Amino acid sequence: MKTNIILISILIVAFLFTGIDKSYTQNFSGKKLVDLTHEFSEESVFWPTAENFNIDTVFAGITEKGYYYSAYQFSLAEHGGTHFDAPVHFCEKGQSVEQIPVERLIGDAVMVDVSADALANRDYLISIEDFEKWEKVNGKIPEDAFVLVNTGYSRFYPDKEKYMGTSERGAEAVAKLHFPGLDPKAATWLAVVRKVNAFGLDTPSIDYGQSVYFETHRNLFKNGVIAFENLTNLDKLPAKGATVFAFPMKIKGGSGAPLRMVAMIP
Amino acid sequence: MKTNIILISILIVAFLFTGIDKSYTQNFSGKKLVDLTHEFSEESVFWPTAENFNIDTVFAGITEKGYYYSAYQFSLAEHGGTHFDAPVHFCEKGQSVEQIPVERLIGDAVMVDVSADALANRDYLISIEDFEKWEKVNGKIPEDAFVLVNTGYSRFYPDKEKYMGTSERGAEAVAKLHFPGLDPKAATWLAVVRKVNAFGLDTPSIDYGQSVYFETHRNLFKNGVIAFENLTNLDKLPAKGATVFAFPMKIKGGSGAPLRMVAMIP
Repeated sequence: MKTNIILISILIVAFLFTGIDKSYTQNFSGKKLVDLTHEFSEESVFWPTAENFNIDTVFAGITEKGYYYSAYQFSLAEHGGTHFDAPVHFCEKGQSVEQIPVERLIGDAVMVDVSADALANRDYLISIEDFEKWEKVNGKIPEDAFVLVNTGYSRFYPDKEKYMGTSERGAEAVAKLHFPGLDPKAATWLAVVRKVNAFGLDTPSIDYGQSVYFETHRNLFKNGVIAFENLTNLDKLPAKGATVFAFPMKIKGGSGAPLRMVAMIP
Repeated sequence: MKTNIILISILIVAFLFTGIDKSYTQNFSGKKLVDLTHEFSEESVFWPTAENFNIDTVFAGITEKGYYYSAYQFSLAEHGGTHFDAPVHFCEKGQSVEQIPVERLIGDAVMVDVSADALANRDYLISIEDFEKWEKVNGKIPEDAFVLVNTGYSRFYPDKEKYMGTSERGAEAVAKLHFPGLDPKAATWLAVVRKVNAFGLDTPSIDYGQSVYFETHRNLFKNGVIAFENLTNLDKLPAKGATVFAFPMKIKGGSGAPLRMVAMIP
């Protein structure tokens, strides 16, 4: 009997160590990866006043030396497509992209789904009540969480009319923007009361389309929270339990940057 | 005695489960993160014939509405700074950046240090023997590994003269490039015999500076291997045991892209 217990203990320990050993291999013990990133192309969604993504062919074909070769060059504004917002975007003393420690780019995700309300109202403001409703089911939003909100608008990307209310370009188009965003009061609540690390969503801006003073950006960034915009596939995340990896291009002094973001689901 | 054994078993199991539970939180149970990425700035190292990284200020200051705001726009060639090479860079039927599944962007790293030889010879070719020497100590390079080679040249970045042999620009500068790279025979061996997933190093190109036909690129890419160039901090990785996250900007049709790469060390 004693031998059996020892044997079982050894087996349990061995099994668990096997699990740990595999947890960082490419199989991740059956963990599933979800890419939360839209492709960059000339279709990518940018703010009406910002430079779009443009790509030029440097060379694509057979070289005079006889082998195939292709290379491109490109240009864009920081704040378009799936991208990262650093605090300095709206806070003079805030960190720029390359100053955010890599430890802050990996963490536990909370996914709040407001798509039913947001799809019914293009000007929907994600509220403290939305987060409290989530907490009633899932428990308190943990400190340092990555709070991600699924508005459902990713399904319209990159159709600018449907996605953000207008496909027009230039300063006059800004007043025609209509898409959901985070209520500035909820921004302060997430930053100060819940002390989250990051906030992201599947619309062009964390402030809703009709914002004039961008107070959600300002409320988050003065508290050092980082942000992600134009995400996708948030509907594929569980309410909690996913780990996210949010890696921006490391632009020195950048107020934002193209972002590659991936979720790992247990 | 029996009770003790049961108690110890329970404690071991509880301890291990605690370890598992924390393995994907931001603390990663004491795992250390290392950023393998150089910053992008106008100092970044690009091929003598490629467009450099350029960044323009769109706005940085107090807006007429009374709050601080900053935003920039930038341009660059795909293959400069710390970047990703997709197989289509040198293989017409190869995958482009956005076609590489995210599952291939995370995996187990093998770090081979050739810095003593490479620092003594700017034209050093990393050979099959270098990998065999590593294998004698560490065991066979596993299938799907991320093979990373530390040449020691990252310490010179972004001093172009010291890093790649010349700071001159234009087509005539190419013949003056001198930096270590991977022997084309070793490229085939890694791709076909060891079936690795990825190869990366801390020089401007996986082919050495004096390469004319870029056979290392061609040998890896015709076999679907992906590559990373201008990495840094490789000297901080263990010979084995690190997990790496190699996330390129998701450029549709891209032959390469800016890369954010991070290693997690147990």
